[in-house]
Amino acid sequence: MATDRPTLEQQIVDLARAARAASHETARLSRARKDAWIVRAAERLETARERIFEANRADLAAAEAAGLEPPMVKRLSLEGDKWRSMIAGLRDVAGLPDPVGEIAQMSVRPNGLRVGRMRIPLGVIAIIYESRPNVTVDAAALCLKAGNAVILRGGSEAFRSNLALGEELRGAARDVGVPEDAVALVATTDRAAIDALLVQDRSIDLVIPRGGPGLIRKVVETSTIPVIKHDAGVCHISLDASADEEMAAALVRDSKIRQMAVCNGLETLLVHRAAARRLLPRVLKVLHEEGVEIRGCERTCEIDAEARPAAEDDWYAEYLAPILAVRVVDDLEAAIAHVRRYGSSHTDVIVTSDYASSQEWVRRVDSSTVGVNCSTAFSDGYRLGLGAEIGISTSKLHAYGPMGLEGLTAQKFVLFGDGQLRE
Amino acid sequence: MATDRPTLEQQIVDLARAARAASHETARLSRARKDAWIVRAAERLETARERIFEANRADLAAAEAAGLEPPMVKRLSLEGDKWRSMIAGLRDVAGLPDPVGEIAQMSVRPNGLRVGRMRIPLGVIAIIYESRPNVTVDAAALCLKAGNAVILRGGSEAFRSNLALGEELRGAARDVGVPEDAVALVATTDRAAIDALLVQDRSIDLVIPRGGPGLIRKVVETSTIPVIKHDAGVCHISLDASADEEMAAALVRDSKIRQMAVCNGLETLLVHRAAARRLLPRVLKVLHEEGVEIRGCERTCEIDAEARPAAEDDWYAEYLAPILAVRVVDDLEAAIAHVRRYGSSHTDVIVTSDYASSQEWVRRVDSSTVGVNCSTAFSDGYRLGLGAEIGISTSKLHAYGPMGLEGLTAQKFVLFGDGQLRE
Repeated sequence: MATDRPTLEQQIVDLARAARAASHETARLSRARKDAWIVRAAERLETARERIFEANRADLAAAEAAGLEPPMVKRLSLEGDKWRSMIAGLRDVAGLPDPVGEIAQMSVRPNGLRVGRMRIPLGVIAIIYESRPNVTVDAAALCLKAGNAVILRGGSEAFRSNLALGEELRGAARDVGVPEDAVALVATTDRAAIDALLVQDRSIDLVIPRGGPGLIRKVVETSTIPVIKHDAGVCHISLDASADEEMAAALVRDSKIRQMAVCNGLETLLVHRAAARRLLPRVLKVLHEEGVEIRGCERTCEIDAEARPAAEDDWYAEYLAPILAVRVVDDLEAAIAHVRRYGSSHTDVIVTSDYASSQEWVRRVDSSTVGVNCSTAFSDGYRLGLGAEIGISTSKLHAYGPMGLEGLTAQKFVLFGDGQLRE
Repeated sequence: MATDRPTLEQQIVDLARAARAASHETARLSRARKDAWIVRAAERLETARERIFEANRADLAAAEAAGLEPPMVKRLSLEGDKWRSMIAGLRDVAGLPDPVGEIAQMSVRPNGLRVGRMRIPLGVIAIIYESRPNVTVDAAALCLKAGNAVILRGGSEAFRSNLALGEELRGAARDVGVPEDAVALVATTDRAAIDALLVQDRSIDLVIPRGGPGLIRKVVETSTIPVIKHDAGVCHISLDASADEEMAAALVRDSKIRQMAVCNGLETLLVHRAAARRLLPRVLKVLHEEGVEIRGCERTCEIDAEARPAAEDDWYAEYLAPILAVRVVDDLEAAIAHVRRYGSSHTDVIVTSDYASSQEWVRRVDSSTVGVNCSTAFSDGYRLGLGAEIGISTSKLHAYGPMGLEGLTAQKFVLFGDGQLRE
């Protein structure tokens, strides 16, 4: 029997309790104090940059040595544009209004009781993520701005980077009088720490897993804490019979090519059979020119000689790579049925010039972002006007789609009376 | 090895899939069709009343024979006022506006893309409840009005009643052309059915457990589906140093006496020590006259000779009975700390004439309903203007506090473009 196991569990219990205690303080912080923490964190990160890059390079070297695939290794890096946008992101969050304390829907009941809903922090939020260490900084800033304490558990492949970043975030808290335990780091790569974390439902209010399907499934199955999944993006564009050829080609190109390894990228193209011969040659030509491999259904392969036959698995695939699945469908009904069956409730767009088709699509596809005649790439908190995002929720409850500051808060009922009795 | 176990699991899988398929239809129903179903259900229940009462009396007889406590047996009964209010409740729900399809927060992005949030049904909602069979009817009406399919799993003690009610609800669906599987009943008392139900996360979007702590804990620990807890109500009134004596006595009386066996009833009274000798004699006299047993802290027992000493467990208790725990606290800070430690995030009220105390209470107590100078009994969907309620959520996520039609829906992002590219 291992002797350190109970100790690890107790460490996690203590860490969660400390975060819970800190959350009572962070819930009361003024916007000025929270923004001071964010600005100070940005300053400290800049000052410590070389030390952080050293830790980051050690993670990169270990990842390469362990034979991690190059795109995964690249996602680990903090340098260059990533660093600049991480720091800029902090200043953006400082610029956002504070959602906490806002009272909405205030009304007066017939007996004079005034009833409203006040926005409050969720409490303690645990983020379990893989790869990109910049999530450590982005997530902490958003959670704290919304008045929450945050528990961060990054991937073991970014362990040194996350620790170096976390140290500065906690240092900034000390500097400005915010409780240090409001930013708690699970400082171990032992996976048993995740199991222990996921049952602390007395101390933790929400778990957000961001990562591959294995991680998401594990969290959903183990957690006794509410979970908001940031799951895969198997995004569709459906070309209606009436779709404009130019627009279809431009939107498919933008949705697939602009960035490949993002969850709002296009993975499956559906085409109404009445328009397949008119639209596909032009649309697929653009993709072939960009080096995208086409995996098509039988009817697609008849139209496009370069297409390879698609297997059933292709309809479920989140490639995150220069591959696109293409299927000719009988009608709008079949397109909606395909999205329901194979999609991941992320982002699904129709290209159409027909009023009825656009209305049917918007009403009946229940993905978190449903669009007409636009790129799938707009499914993004910044682009949709949320100011920032902690990720894209594919869970219908609480926050569905791009999730900003508001998604990190709750609303309670507040009642102002002058002695009202029910009787 | 039992041979019926796999069969039961398969039955539950099939039932959940059928509900999922029905939910695609219910999501599209017009308000007129949904209301026609509700009105038809009310008619059919009235027509079948005697048959339903027979089933109900069989449940009551079995419960008595099994030695169930009289208050529990009473909760099982469907006759008298309960029947009338169940039928009236149906007509109330038919009168509520349809939340589905409403688009809010529509805005135009700089590139002309129009972005809004459309209210959609959650999909399939499973309700697991104990005792009161009228929940079968109330819950089905609310879930369906919000465009969802519902899976109902009532307690075994109300099995015959629930089956008789459910038959009419499904019959009404057939009568008006709503898919029958939109109201699915788990027609077995085998508890293994609950375990099987709680892992159908591909078919079910939300589980709402309503019942005792054992049921709630089981659901939280087993479910891979998001859970909104309708947990115990350990509700507090805190008498501030500045509380008015008359108002304090009236509010405590109303909150404790009006109804005992309800989750928004008062269970613990806190009193600022500076006002304990001024307020307690009057407040407790009223309760003694009503036959309420007082379990007090040491300081309370010094003031009230009739009080029995409280044990630590009393601060956690949801009595649902003529018993009240009373504690003298040092200050507002101690009152807030008590509510945080022992409360259940349900309903907590301060009685005060002091501005700063009222503000502190409202900001810092993060229960689902936080009140000033009013009865705890206002924590109720009808009383707060929601029109109806499916229960009172003590989970912060998605819906916190009294949960009406809106809590049974989600919001997706809808994007209306004319060819916008991200690049």
